Amino acid sequence: MPKIVDHEKQKQRVAEAAWRVIREEGMEQATVRKIAEEAGMSVGSLRYYFSSQSELFAFSMNLVSERVKERIRSISFSGPSRESMKLLLKELLPMDEEKRFEGEVWFAFTAKALSDKSLLSLSQQVYRELRSVMALIINSLVDQGLALPDLNAELETERLYALIDGLAIHGTLEPGQVTPDLMENIVTAHLKSICKAERTSENG
Amino acid sequence: MPKIVDHEKQKQRVAEAAWRVIREEGMEQATVRKIAEEAGMSVGSLRYYFSSQSELFAFSMNLVSERVKERIRSISFSGPSRESMKLLLKELLPMDEEKRFEGEVWFAFTAKALSDKSLLSLSQQVYRELRSVMALIINSLVDQGLALPDLNAELETERLYALIDGLAIHGTLEPGQVTPDLMENIVTAHLKSICKAERTSENG
Repeated sequence: MPKIVDHEKQKQRVAEAAWRVIREEGMEQATVRKIAEEAGMSVGSLRYYFSSQSELFAFSMNLVSERVKERIRSISFSGPSRESMKLLLKELLPMDEEKRFEGEVWFAFTAKALSDKSLLSLSQQVYRELRSVMALIINSLVDQGLALPDLNAELETERLYALIDGLAIHGTLEPGQVTPDLMENIVTAHLKSICKAERTSENG
Repeated sequence: MPKIVDHEKQKQRVAEAAWRVIREEGMEQATVRKIAEEAGMSVGSLRYYFSSQSELFAFSMNLVSERVKERIRSISFSGPSRESMKLLLKELLPMDEEKRFEGEVWFAFTAKALSDKSLLSLSQQVYRELRSVMALIINSLVDQGLALPDLNAELETERLYALIDGLAIHGTLEPGQVTPDLMENIVTAHLKSICKAERTSENG
């Protein structure tokens, strides 16, 4: 009987090898040959899964965003409180080594998307998805009566998204300066600044 | 008499050609040969100014930050008011086509610096310089008694920097969504949120 190979798993193995090559040697060194070598397979085998470098890059970039979305979906919310919103936002920040690795790879792909049309639409799609997460957070706070009464929801959505993306980049590029603790404190302070004072005794 | 060539001007001409190639074709296509062609000079002439691609990239990256710093220095401040701080912050945002071009090039260089040690220290130096601009703004607001009394200056410096960098990236990548008007409104709202109410009749 022929050996059954999990097609999707093999593609993910190649994508993860691409991440490592991109992170360690840079995008311009991430050739199909080097990625095949890193994945421990022949160029011919890799070509079976991806017919072009563009296809491989699009899959690899998409896989980063899928992993992040998977983590967001797996959070069990205790309710649309400020604390739950903080949990959600922290999933988008480089709070540990694994997420920092994702951040570096994502940053490299986004920069490449500026000049690579095949990645641009994917990058824009993820931008829209993340923006809608921010809109969900702001609108939930408004709907639950937690937000300040005069909040401009559209402006606050963009402000929150810019803040989180900026923090993600600084936490990735300057981890010694922008530590996980500092990122968490900034997110807490920002949510506090757009919300009414909490009624509990622990005004975070 | 031999023709006098302005060495610095020629280097800038090469750097600007590099920016155009990086922006239009991507970092991995920005070979010395292509940059020389774009600059309208021979590879040999280019090598006279830059002995390696790394040296050329470092100069090009540095020139972007020098241009931004030059603009900041040229602003004539009417005083350390909220309005002056806004003027300064707007110089760091892609408020027009020229600054958006700079943003794209800067983004590409920063991504490359993640895996290119020769650019990393330059990228970190600019990070520190921009961070100190943010610290200057926050500390000025505190010193002038304009800031809210319980402001955590260190946290607010990082929050402002993350917000501005995030806005710069979104304004560069998603200009249709994050327009100059929206960026300006967000900066205004952010400064307002960390300051006491203004005493003038125009509480912007």
